[in-house]
Amino acid sequence: MTANLENTGRTTAQNAQLALLLEVSSTPKPGNVDREREYPELRFEQFLAGAVGTHAGFAAVADGDPLGPAFERAIAGMSHQTGGNTQFGATLLLTPLVAAAGGGELRPDRASAAVEETTVDDAVAFYRAFEYVDVAVPEPPEGMDALDVRRGGDAEPALRESGLTLEDVMSRSADRDGIAAELTGGFGWTFELARVIERGEGSVTDRAAAAYLALLSRELDTFVVTNHDRETAYEVRRRANEVLDGEESVYRFAEDLVDRGINPGTTADIVAGGLFVALERGLEV
Amino acid sequence: MTANLENTGRTTAQNAQLALLLEVSSTPKPGNVDREREYPELRFEQFLAGAVGTHAGFAAVADGDPLGPAFERAIAGMSHQTGGNTQFGATLLLTPLVAAAGGGELRPDRASAAVEETTVDDAVAFYRAFEYVDVAVPEPPEGMDALDVRRGGDAEPALRESGLTLEDVMSRSADRDGIAAELTGGFGWTFELARVIERGEGSVTDRAAAAYLALLSRELDTFVVTNHDRETAYEVRRRANEVLDGEESVYRFAEDLVDRGINPGTTADIVAGGLFVALERGLEV
Repeated sequence: MTANLENTGRTTAQNAQLALLLEVSSTPKPGNVDREREYPELRFEQFLAGAVGTHAGFAAVADGDPLGPAFERAIAGMSHQTGGNTQFGATLLLTPLVAAAGGGELRPDRASAAVEETTVDDAVAFYRAFEYVDVAVPEPPEGMDALDVRRGGDAEPALRESGLTLEDVMSRSADRDGIAAELTGGFGWTFELARVIERGEGSVTDRAAAAYLALLSRELDTFVVTNHDRETAYEVRRRANEVLDGEESVYRFAEDLVDRGINPGTTADIVAGGLFVALERGLEV
Repeated sequence: MTANLENTGRTTAQNAQLALLLEVSSTPKPGNVDREREYPELRFEQFLAGAVGTHAGFAAVADGDPLGPAFERAIAGMSHQTGGNTQFGATLLLTPLVAAAGGGELRPDRASAAVEETTVDDAVAFYRAFEYVDVAVPEPPEGMDALDVRRGGDAEPALRESGLTLEDVMSRSADRDGIAAELTGGFGWTFELARVIERGEGSVTDRAAAAYLALLSRELDTFVVTNHDRETAYEVRRRANEVLDGEESVYRFAEDLVDRGINPGTTADIVAGGLFVALERGLEV
């Protein structure tokens, strides 16, 4: 059963916005900005402003607007703060989930269908979204410079010529980007984290922090791979396991990652997705 | 000059929502829920959900809807969380400010005019808003039971018979309620705190926390008077001065107030108002 305005008191778009707010407020979330940790140039308050700005884009896609332009609108709104990329990945993950929830029952297959139905226009709008903020992305493969997302709207002719939809674009980066993997692989982690959060105890933010650590201990964070390297991502996963095994303090782990600027952002993005699914299903705050 | 969508990237209603989020995120804010302190039954995450829910009400009043029904709508939206009264007072203070900003330049006289233009219908809607959450209020004066706000919509006949507008209702409680005093007394502290925040340094939440302490050291908090007594409110003011003078640690002060359940909520509400004014004038986050 999908929750709706009647039983949560919030619209689907408001639940998406609240998911972003709850995600950044969950603590400790080693390496990421949270209620108690921030970077000098990327502050908690900028995530608040980012979440406020996404609402119109989420409302559009909940109402049935195409995914790409709605995502671009959400990112344009998110960008009105001085921190840069606060919630690009989380918003990308949320957009098809909001489409599915807005149109009926929120199930993985319906979110996947929303991705499968995307067109070249959606891909063009997705590329344009990169013009609003700097997003760390892997280098494009050899010979693919014309389709580098960092080209933004300038990539439109190349996109149209190759006839790539947003789904095609996501499929091509699924091996290097955990969000693209969710979008094209059935949203497995997103719905799994929703269950972890629903089954958890205590405040929603405590549950979300536990879900974050659980995922960090199981999947390599692709944002860490992109910004650092695969070895660093392995180290993060190993130490998350040590925290769960009681061999390392979560606080020491958190301080060390912040000191070294290691930010497992993809894991945090998937927590936001899990929070949204749980909220739509009626999780109380 | 009032800021607008073009220069902040946010609508007036979004700035009001962001002001609520920034207020609760400002720390340390002795006695109030903030990013690092919460009460078991009144948690940070409930303030996030409350702020998300206010948006439609703020959007309505920014578009020129009457104050009372828009306020009721904001409170209905705020109430969809399990913490009860999170932002009743702050929303009441913000509503005429949003009306003024939505209709033109945000100045104290224009916010006062929005209050002066209220009708009996606005008063009735204001009373109805008390049906959504339990709000701590002073006992009504002798012989005024029929107009006790805790009667909610049941007070409508008494309101209509006495012909009281929302402004009249506010005027009658201005001596016991700091928010009513702002609404009927020219919004002096609200605009003063906006200046404190604008002139401050560091993050917006640090500036807001400093503004909170400055006001706490100068004005008795009427919410503390209502929930405790005048002596406790004097103690809070005295100790806020000692913190400013370096004679007491702000953290010890904060812990002590939380331990004793002393919550200077009116002071926090006025900080939210100051944040909104500063955001509308172009304060960057």
